[in-house]
Amino acid sequence: MRALVFDGELHVKEIPMPSRVRGEALIRVMTAGVCNTDVEIVKGYMGFEGVPGHEFVGIVEKCDNAHLRGKRVVGEINCSCNQCHYCQLEMPHHCLNRSVLGIQGRNGAFAEYLVLPEDNLHIVPGTIRDDVAVFAEPVAAAFRILEQISIGEDDQVVVLGDGKLGQLICQVLLGHTKHLTCVGKHKWKLDLLRDQHVDTVLFGEEQAPEGADVVVDATGSPMGLVSALELVRPEGTVVLKTTTSASVKANSNYIVINEVRIMGSRCGPFRPALEALTLGTVEVRPMITEAFELGEGVRALQSASDPGVMKVLLHI
Amino acid sequence: MRALVFDGELHVKEIPMPSRVRGEALIRVMTAGVCNTDVEIVKGYMGFEGVPGHEFVGIVEKCDNAHLRGKRVVGEINCSCNQCHYCQLEMPHHCLNRSVLGIQGRNGAFAEYLVLPEDNLHIVPGTIRDDVAVFAEPVAAAFRILEQISIGEDDQVVVLGDGKLGQLICQVLLGHTKHLTCVGKHKWKLDLLRDQHVDTVLFGEEQAPEGADVVVDATGSPMGLVSALELVRPEGTVVLKTTTSASVKANSNYIVINEVRIMGSRCGPFRPALEALTLGTVEVRPMITEAFELGEGVRALQSASDPGVMKVLLHI
Repeated sequence: MRALVFDGELHVKEIPMPSRVRGEALIRVMTAGVCNTDVEIVKGYMGFEGVPGHEFVGIVEKCDNAHLRGKRVVGEINCSCNQCHYCQLEMPHHCLNRSVLGIQGRNGAFAEYLVLPEDNLHIVPGTIRDDVAVFAEPVAAAFRILEQISIGEDDQVVVLGDGKLGQLICQVLLGHTKHLTCVGKHKWKLDLLRDQHVDTVLFGEEQAPEGADVVVDATGSPMGLVSALELVRPEGTVVLKTTTSASVKANSNYIVINEVRIMGSRCGPFRPALEALTLGTVEVRPMITEAFELGEGVRALQSASDPGVMKVLLHI
Repeated sequence: MRALVFDGELHVKEIPMPSRVRGEALIRVMTAGVCNTDVEIVKGYMGFEGVPGHEFVGIVEKCDNAHLRGKRVVGEINCSCNQCHYCQLEMPHHCLNRSVLGIQGRNGAFAEYLVLPEDNLHIVPGTIRDDVAVFAEPVAAAFRILEQISIGEDDQVVVLGDGKLGQLICQVLLGHTKHLTCVGKHKWKLDLLRDQHVDTVLFGEEQAPEGADVVVDATGSPMGLVSALELVRPEGTVVLKTTTSASVKANSNYIVINEVRIMGSRCGPFRPALEALTLGTVEVRPMITEAFELGEGVRALQSASDPGVMKVLLHI
């Protein structure tokens, strides 16, 4: 099959079909989304080599569970062992032996086919288009925040970053607080959010609200945490979403003196994500900037790292 | 009056008596304790100039509240305005206009007299000796952890740092979990904790337990957070107590991927601290290495930064 492969360099090539074991499904990928993590992987993040890509929608071609066969699905990306200490504690996302689709130990979605455990799959309602369903994984990551902290309607919430994930997080949190501000560096991206009644602040030109109860760092930059610590109130919460190949140098005194809580946040629940996409409470199509064919995969990833571009899709 | 003054250099000199305003008490200091924060202040931490020192026991000489006059007291170190946003929210420790005894905008306890608001004072039970009562402030800082997070008896708790604060934190947490380990660099300090039935690990020579539910960083070193992140389990909690004049360079990916929660922790409640000192559930006298007269204050602070020394007291 054809796949976009990173092995120190990125190129489209023929590789063997993935083999599936019992309990896994072979999925023909229809559309995949390019995430900032993919861009970081190509810079060396996680030391991953293989097929990147973890946002997809596809059709189940082979599986053991008859109910799934032929269905259009999206999939959770962490593949757990169901046996280790953390699996026993019902924390499969933190399985010690896990592979992660297109990120760690398992080839990903920038290919004609991928394999995932059947338990990871969610059937996509027929009313959701492919180019919407492909957002299920990052929308789920946004919903993860609501599993980790409570946000009240009077809470002042600031989202740092107007990129793909920042946009989704704003839309997910919009129903939970009356005071939501997105701080970003790109007027046209902020305009998208203003259309959805999110307050926006152009970084460096307008003043961000200080003393926020919750600041979410979705900048994708090692400076995001530094900015978040400047904006959060004492005893407030910083939710950290940024993963980057660079290290961050922070002044920990500020964390101690202001008794700030920092919460790392990763993958989230697909059910509310699919529901939000179905109901349209999260609107993703204005975020799609470009779509490429798999054969143009190298260009697609270059394009995705351009600040003038938001979501890049790959049609397989 | 005589005081130990830091004005870029540290020296003992005559300075004017502190003046008190309505609602404040003039306190004759009897014994003061040297904290790692004092050692850091002399290195430039917080940009503080004046009289350092925030751990003390003394006698109220002048005040408005007749109930306090002549009493032996210890005192909370944050002096709040009672008017700002955070005071209204009942977060006086985070008052925007606060002064902090011997740390920020207010002369401290390494002097014959100090002034604090009457509301900050706690009368010391007659059964507690001066050289025990002087530990009320750092013991309160240890109790702060229990106000911020819940620790269950089955939780695996690791305290990093066998110094003054690490010792107190271990003793405070000892009654809350069956699985408490202190990781330190000094065998003789760890031996003190082993006498109290705390498990100990000599850093670099013995293996610390990984996958801890809670790791408390009381190392006083910018490397403490890095070590804490190595030992905490996914979705576990790192309590950060270290304040230092140096910055910390951390890999924030680890925080995100493992969804770790980091909690800054500063000053705490005096009531349970005085109770623990009264009941002897926290035993502080084995921690006292040396005592100096105020006139030897410069030597006292030099001594306190020696890793071979634990608590240094100043008799005023």
